[in-house]
Amino acid sequence: LCRECKRLTILNSELFTLTYGALVTQLCKDYENDEEVNKQLDKMGYNIGVRLIEDFLARSSVGRCQDFRETADVIAKVAFKMYLGITPSVTNWSPAGDEFSLILESNPLVDFVELPDNHSTLVYSNLLCGVLRGALEMVQMAVDVKFAQDSLRGDNVTEIRMKFIKRIEENLPAGDE
Amino acid sequence: LCRECKRLTILNSELFTLTYGALVTQLCKDYENDEEVNKQLDKMGYNIGVRLIEDFLARSSVGRCQDFRETADVIAKVAFKMYLGITPSVTNWSPAGDEFSLILESNPLVDFVELPDNHSTLVYSNLLCGVLRGALEMVQMAVDVKFAQDSLRGDNVTEIRMKFIKRIEENLPAGDE
Repeated sequence: LCRECKRLTILNSELFTLTYGALVTQLCKDYENDEEVNKQLDKMGYNIGVRLIEDFLARSSVGRCQDFRETADVIAKVAFKMYLGITPSVTNWSPAGDEFSLILESNPLVDFVELPDNHSTLVYSNLLCGVLRGALEMVQMAVDVKFAQDSLRGDNVTEIRMKFIKRIEENLPAGDE
Repeated sequence: LCRECKRLTILNSELFTLTYGALVTQLCKDYENDEEVNKQLDKMGYNIGVRLIEDFLARSSVGRCQDFRETADVIAKVAFKMYLGITPSVTNWSPAGDEFSLILESNPLVDFVELPDNHSTLVYSNLLCGVLRGALEMVQMAVDVKFAQDSLRGDNVTEIRMKFIKRIEENLPAGDE
């Protein structure tokens, strides 16, 4: 990337970060407890992922992944890079090859964020889990996605754990090949 | 910009656009009517603008504007370019030079958006007005900002009207609303 563009991309995410903060704040007002907010963020993310995948496939010219390892690489190196400007590392593979972790050394969504004491169980960036789940479902892959560690809650790194559940039958109403 | 970066910046805004949509949808569930939602978006935008201005000044190396015309140019050519990737044109100056319009030929916030019939008075992108108001207040400028036209509601273009109200005394503390 040229210097100018790096700057633009980062800056762009600044307004996004603050807007995301406004969304989480609003949900914290709306719902009884953190668990409900986490659930709502995941659901919103899902709806976003379902729409974002189309854009992703069109622009990235990424083809069908051969296996879950390739999927992991595409998520980390192409998708995260594109939409959040970061490249998480892929690690902690389960022996069966059906689970891995994305380690985010930085997370643009939490810039300037501090969790208040009364929201210690809030999974602030949970929208991302929903986005991944929704997007992958549209390419016939059912996955379980959750935060295993979160730097916002004092962990050293932020870790998203992804587990492959099953391949979804093609003849369900999930779009063409 | 290099081609790669243009692509990245646009893509980045895609996730932002969809997340912003989730925020507006949530507010429409929360509040009685469009007017309340518009007000809430403006207020959220204000709180974002108050924080964003610091980032803007630090990164843009823009100095104090000499007059409202210079302010208009900086908003259109630097700020909008940075955070939304577009450059609105500055036009429709009032004879006194205290009002102008920003004409947005495209608005990244409304990509894929269609207003349902029962939200005909929703000012979908009203957050932007609040951002501008909040940011300018932090540089001692009180302005009135509102959408005069909106392509989302069938107008040919999207027009944000800005009116200079007064210069704010430097020694007042400007806090959240």
